[in-house]
Amino acid sequence: MGVKLALIAELVGGRVVGDAEREVASLAPLDRAGPDHIAFLANPKYLHQLADSSAGAVLIRQQDLDTLGGASAGRSWIVTDNPYAGFARVAQHFVAAAEPRPRAGVDPRALVEMGATVDETASIGPFAIVEAGASIGARARVGAHAFVGRGAVIGEDVLIHPRATIHHGCRVGARTIIHSGAVIGADGFGFAPDFSSDSDPEATGQWVKIPQVGGVTLGQDVEIGANTTIDRGAMADTVVEDDVKIDNLVQIAHNCRIGAHTVIAACAGIAGSSVIGRHCMIGGAVGIAGHVTLGDRVVVTAKSGVSKSLRGPGVYTSAFPAIANADWNRNAAVMRNLDTMRQRLKQLEATVADLSGK
Amino acid sequence: MGVKLALIAELVGGRVVGDAEREVASLAPLDRAGPDHIAFLANPKYLHQLADSSAGAVLIRQQDLDTLGGASAGRSWIVTDNPYAGFARVAQHFVAAAEPRPRAGVDPRALVEMGATVDETASIGPFAIVEAGASIGARARVGAHAFVGRGAVIGEDVLIHPRATIHHGCRVGARTIIHSGAVIGADGFGFAPDFSSDSDPEATGQWVKIPQVGGVTLGQDVEIGANTTIDRGAMADTVVEDDVKIDNLVQIAHNCRIGAHTVIAACAGIAGSSVIGRHCMIGGAVGIAGHVTLGDRVVVTAKSGVSKSLRGPGVYTSAFPAIANADWNRNAAVMRNLDTMRQRLKQLEATVADLSGK
Amino acid sequence: MGVKLALIAELVGGRVVGDAEREVASLAPLDRAGPDHIAFLANPKYLHQLADSSAGAVLIRQQDLDTLGGASAGRSWIVTDNPYAGFARVAQHFVAAAEPRPRAGVDPRALVEMGATVDETASIGPFAIVEAGASIGARARVGAHAFVGRGAVIGEDVLIHPRATIHHGCRVGARTIIHSGAVIGADGFGFAPDFSSDSDPEATGQWVKIPQVGGVTLGQDVEIGANTTIDRGAMADTVVEDDVKIDNLVQIAHNCRIGAHTVIAACAGIAGSSVIGRHCMIGGAVGIAGHVTLGDRVVVTAKSGVSKSLRGPGVYTSAFPAIANADWNRNAAVMRNLDTMRQRLKQLEATVADLSGK
Repeated sequence: MGVKLALIAELVGGRVVGDAEREVASLAPLDRAGPDHIAFLANPKYLHQLADSSAGAVLIRQQDLDTLGGASAGRSWIVTDNPYAGFARVAQHFVAAAEPRPRAGVDPRALVEMGATVDETASIGPFAIVEAGASIGARARVGAHAFVGRGAVIGEDVLIHPRATIHHGCRVGARTIIHSGAVIGADGFGFAPDFSSDSDPEATGQWVKIPQVGGVTLGQDVEIGANTTIDRGAMADTVVEDDVKIDNLVQIAHNCRIGAHTVIAACAGIAGSSVIGRHCMIGGAVGIAGHVTLGDRVVVTAKSGVSKSLRGPGVYTSAFPAIANADWNRNAAVMRNLDTMRQRLKQLEATVADLSGK
Repeated sequence: MGVKLALIAELVGGRVVGDAEREVASLAPLDRAGPDHIAFLANPKYLHQLADSSAGAVLIRQQDLDTLGGASAGRSWIVTDNPYAGFARVAQHFVAAAEPRPRAGVDPRALVEMGATVDETASIGPFAIVEAGASIGARARVGAHAFVGRGAVIGEDVLIHPRATIHHGCRVGARTIIHSGAVIGADGFGFAPDFSSDSDPEATGQWVKIPQVGGVTLGQDVEIGANTTIDRGAMADTVVEDDVKIDNLVQIAHNCRIGAHTVIAACAGIAGSSVIGRHCMIGGAVGIAGHVTLGDRVVVTAKSGVSKSLRGPGVYTSAFPAIANADWNRNAAVMRNLDTMRQRLKQLEATVADLSGK
Repeated sequence: MGVKLALIAELVGGRVVGDAEREVASLAPLDRAGPDHIAFLANPKYLHQLADSSAGAVLIRQQDLDTLGGASAGRSWIVTDNPYAGFARVAQHFVAAAEPRPRAGVDPRALVEMGATVDETASIGPFAIVEAGASIGARARVGAHAFVGRGAVIGEDVLIHPRATIHHGCRVGARTIIHSGAVIGADGFGFAPDFSSDSDPEATGQWVKIPQVGGVTLGQDVEIGANTTIDRGAMADTVVEDDVKIDNLVQIAHNCRIGAHTVIAACAGIAGSSVIGRHCMIGGAVGIAGHVTLGDRVVVTAKSGVSKSLRGPGVYTSAFPAIANADWNRNAAVMRNLDTMRQRLKQLEATVADLSGK
């Protein structure tokens, strides 16, 4: 199962310094790696760890290898601009080799409706459902208990984990990964009020459901976390662009558009019709209001709330860190009178100015 | 597939001004509608858009039609008090006509246990389960992979989307919609502490589970979002009254009661035994503590936290909007000393009063 | 179906004062209990309710029974140090007797792959899947539509509710309960950036997925709420220790460790690699950053955010309670200038000191 350094160099787009025929059996951190492991050094501040490491090979940047000079002897190196990304790619290679891959074909317990198209290299797991008119691309894997609604389009090499749900008419781009429990394309939350009064608590009437006839389009190389929900659009599609990574338990409401390469951490929620730029980073449990626009490279730190559009690039925050409860409560009580305090200060300034002028 | 304006008038409870025999093929916004579309005008500030619109028919209020006067000629109108709700109802009509409806009956891959009752007009999808003693009402649809536990009662015209779970003994009122991944009737979160000490980190003992023997009652015309959880009551039922609309990823804990017509946006959570009034609007990611009461027509804005009962009607808030991180941090640091600042201000006022009095 | 008080005393580790042969049919609160009910009195402030209660038997502490003195005559008592935990245990007994228990064995509609081990006393529900190499312990129940991935280890008496997902290689300790929709062992959220620039909005490149090759270990007597997600570790396991109770819609990210007996309320989220102590209480919707450590017996109140390590024991907070929106907004506006206000106060103090010194 050893992998030659020559192949690893190819995987990461780097080059070997040392013995290209040398084989490594797996990856390990510098401090735990042995002679048949490959490690990585992404940050020069860990250069000192190299002396004590037994790693047979190390992913490293050219400038860090230059710093080592003669100390680099006796080990093999893979030189690359981005050793951390290289490490991730090598890890993918080892995992893909070790992990069982489901056989191509439709499990006899699955239901593929008449009029669905399943590529012969795709695999459909037990109790999975592919409805009429849906299509499943080459090498795509539809996990056990997964649901692909009528007319949905699943791209090449897509991985739908067990018990993910893709509703009718949604589109999933190549290589996208959808984790268990995710729901893509449930109805957006839209209702028209139809009540006899806006203020009478005894008003009669009801909310009238507005049909949600758009879909969801997920780009290529997207990842959607477990139990995350992305609603279908009211008229047009909710859109998640290429290479967006969304963590678990995130809510993306109808008509949103999430720009390419943006990352959204767990428990965040984005209300309807908001547009998030490219290369944004949305922290955990962040809430973003509806109908706002975030520019490219906007970072919103964890637990913050966004109620207005934010220009990018920039870092935005509205969350306090927890402190001792008694201290918090004492200060929070003042917060409720902050405006009064501001007025007292202003008054005092006037008085003092008067006094000073005397 | 055209629909006569006479029928549309009937659907919305309005009346035709113009050609009642005219047919429209679908809906469109005013600015994109053509001669065979019906549009709506809910707000008089958009009256000017009418001149440029090719819409064959428009839902409008009487007063707005009156404002138009002679300019209303050459088009047909549906006069109604609430054009927006009318638009929603017409959209429902078009969607229902276009959408395939599952055939009545039990899919051969479903499991309907002995002793369950399924109305002959209901449909049970593939891999769905209806346990013993459960009953499924007329025209109800139980989606693929859905689970209806023993003794649960599903009303007429209920729509349970694929992979929703209704646990034993829960009740779902007529026309209610439950989206994929929702869990109705999991155990409430209740444990009795049984430890040798309340303060010793090495205390022995355990949490003792308190059985949750109540159920969940959902009223009529309720909508429950994807991956939302509503726990069963400890003794009596958790109750969601008629026409309550709950978005995705919402948590309703055991013993809560949610008043009729209330709307709860995504990612909100309501802790145990709280009572929410009628016609309330709970914003996204709002958290409501346990054992509190919200009056009728209480609005809680997004991301706020409610720790005490709130009288209705009224709007309540406790969330800050995100600002530039550096600005936030500078001010947040002061917040941690707000009480000290208040005392300094008070001291200063006394000193200045002294000085002024001199 | 009556249960003798002698048996109840044994269940709760208490002793009978009165008629040990007396039978009770079920539990009820003091104010609703009749002669064939058993009630409990955990707090002496409710002693006065006893006079009006018809309860045939009551769980009570010795000191409270002593307080009653002669007033205790005519009723039977179970004396125990912890009447509330006793009540929970008795309730469990009644529920277990009343609730149907699935028959041992594999439902014919389930899929147990070759090479999986299922104890003959375990039950596997309809449409459930147990993959190759997984093992299911004695008396464990795997609910309908549940998924147990390859090599996962499910302990004795575990209860996996319908439609919970346990991914490959995860371990679940004895008596642990996993509610519907929970996802144990989805991939942790880890990506290495590989972009041509960190600041150019038009940068090319992509996020490179870091394979998550750890698993999840859940201890004994753990409870995991509905739709909660616990991600697998990147290299080693994410760990939840014994007797941890986690509510619905909670996110536990990769590499976390949650100490024994800790309780986490709904909608909370814990980011990657954080370590939570023993006997902690994490409130609803709390967010905890990655790579922090919480000591034993740390309490974080609802909706607070934790960005740094917190020493235990102690109570920590960073959330405000909602107040009238107009009041909030007026004060929140000042908050945005708090640092300026602090400087003005400082300036004023200097001026006044000058004036006073004159």
